Amino acid sequence: MTELRARSLDGIPEVRPGDDLAAIIARSAGPGAFAADEVVAVAHTIVSKAEGAVIRLADVVPGDRALDLASKQGKDPRLVQVVLDESAELLRAERGILISRTRHGLVCANAGVDISNAGTPDTAVLLPRDPDASARALRAGLRELGAGGPAVLITDTFGRAWRLGQSDVAVGVAGLAALDDWRGRGDAEGNELHATVIAVADAAAAAADLARSKDSREPVVAISGLGRFVSEEDGPGARALIRPLDEDLFR
Amino acid sequence: MTELRARSLDGIPEVRPGDDLAAIIARSAGPGAFAADEVVAVAHTIVSKAEGAVIRLADVVPGDRALDLASKQGKDPRLVQVVLDESAELLRAERGILISRTRHGLVCANAGVDISNAGTPDTAVLLPRDPDASARALRAGLRELGAGGPAVLITDTFGRAWRLGQSDVAVGVAGLAALDDWRGRGDAEGNELHATVIAVADAAAAAADLARSKDSREPVVAISGLGRFVSEEDGPGARALIRPLDEDLFR
Repeated sequence: MTELRARSLDGIPEVRPGDDLAAIIARSAGPGAFAADEVVAVAHTIVSKAEGAVIRLADVVPGDRALDLASKQGKDPRLVQVVLDESAELLRAERGILISRTRHGLVCANAGVDISNAGTPDTAVLLPRDPDASARALRAGLRELGAGGPAVLITDTFGRAWRLGQSDVAVGVAGLAALDDWRGRGDAEGNELHATVIAVADAAAAAADLARSKDSREPVVAISGLGRFVSEEDGPGARALIRPLDEDLFR
Repeated sequence: MTELRARSLDGIPEVRPGDDLAAIIARSAGPGAFAADEVVAVAHTIVSKAEGAVIRLADVVPGDRALDLASKQGKDPRLVQVVLDESAELLRAERGILISRTRHGLVCANAGVDISNAGTPDTAVLLPRDPDASARALRAGLRELGAGGPAVLITDTFGRAWRLGQSDVAVGVAGLAALDDWRGRGDAEGNELHATVIAVADAAAAAADLARSKDSREPVVAISGLGRFVSEEDGPGARALIRPLDEDLFR
């Protein structure tokens, strides 16, 4: 028997630009709270806020394209401008939904721009500029503060093309194998597994989201039982989860 | 603090057509092994095998379309015929990959047909005919056998359009809310959450997959900590997770 456990942390306060997020998490968790083979999943919103990746909508002047899209899709033109600024490519604009490929290569609604948990009603929270770098910095910070050197996941909530509902995925990773590649290895019966690459970091993000209630301020979840995927090195990060453009069958 | 726990079950033997899967799971788990507010996630392969949803490739005669597709995509024409038989619509056939909408409405590679864990090398394992009905029957069976009346998930491993790696999702559900709909409810700061519907059953399936190692025979995982989503009634099942065709932006 193996066991996975995910527990949400209490007492994370509202995070503001410039805050030391590692110190906030370490303080909430208590000394030595994380084992080195644990994974700490952190909702990107608090990472983005600490890094100042927030924009006051009152400061945004929408351009012609944003005004046009906003009118057709029934959205706030200032939000649409922010979404366009965060997008490398707009893939769909239909039914009031904007699906983009972000500058990180992530395909998601609104280019990952979030207004629901922003603290003040007219603030847009962006994705971190470089979520893998954010994860590495947070891991290093936790280690320095004596809170253990757990792997770090930075998570966001994505929709899915053919399934209703949203699921958390990993947009930044440090110290966890984002993918577990079984291709060429055998299964329990010795058959070759042809195409099994498990998206470990995304599954861990989804598991973390089940350990909290969305209406409580629990953006940090500690996961144990994934030690086989945790490494001392930070590794390639969540970038490894992005399907290359030339393998995209659904552009 | 809330906590999610997922533990894999030891000792599930090879399952054969006609086997009583509820009895097999109850025997492996021991008496009263599951609490009524737990969720038992079961890999669809053993459900399909117990139900006889398996096909010997040696018995399959591929038709012209299967022969043509198999030749172009470098696949076994008998497998392609089975995939076509299971598909309502073939969405993509590129790069050796077949993406279908199954007769259940699921969009996935190979219409969910699996050859890797079939027990014998030339057997194809299909998805159950009606995975929600399978989940309900398994739940009722476990309850009758005194193993508790846990919610039941039947899982499969799906790829994702824009992300590498695969993740387990729920194809059958009984007694668990597949979706947790926060639209119109407020978040911790009182802001309205505009589009947050959490795909609880898929996240639970992903979490369950992390509690086992793919090369060990652990197709059954018990999850605790989701009692708030478990109900006495079986509910609408995993069907609720399928995005209606007219809302599909990526056909």
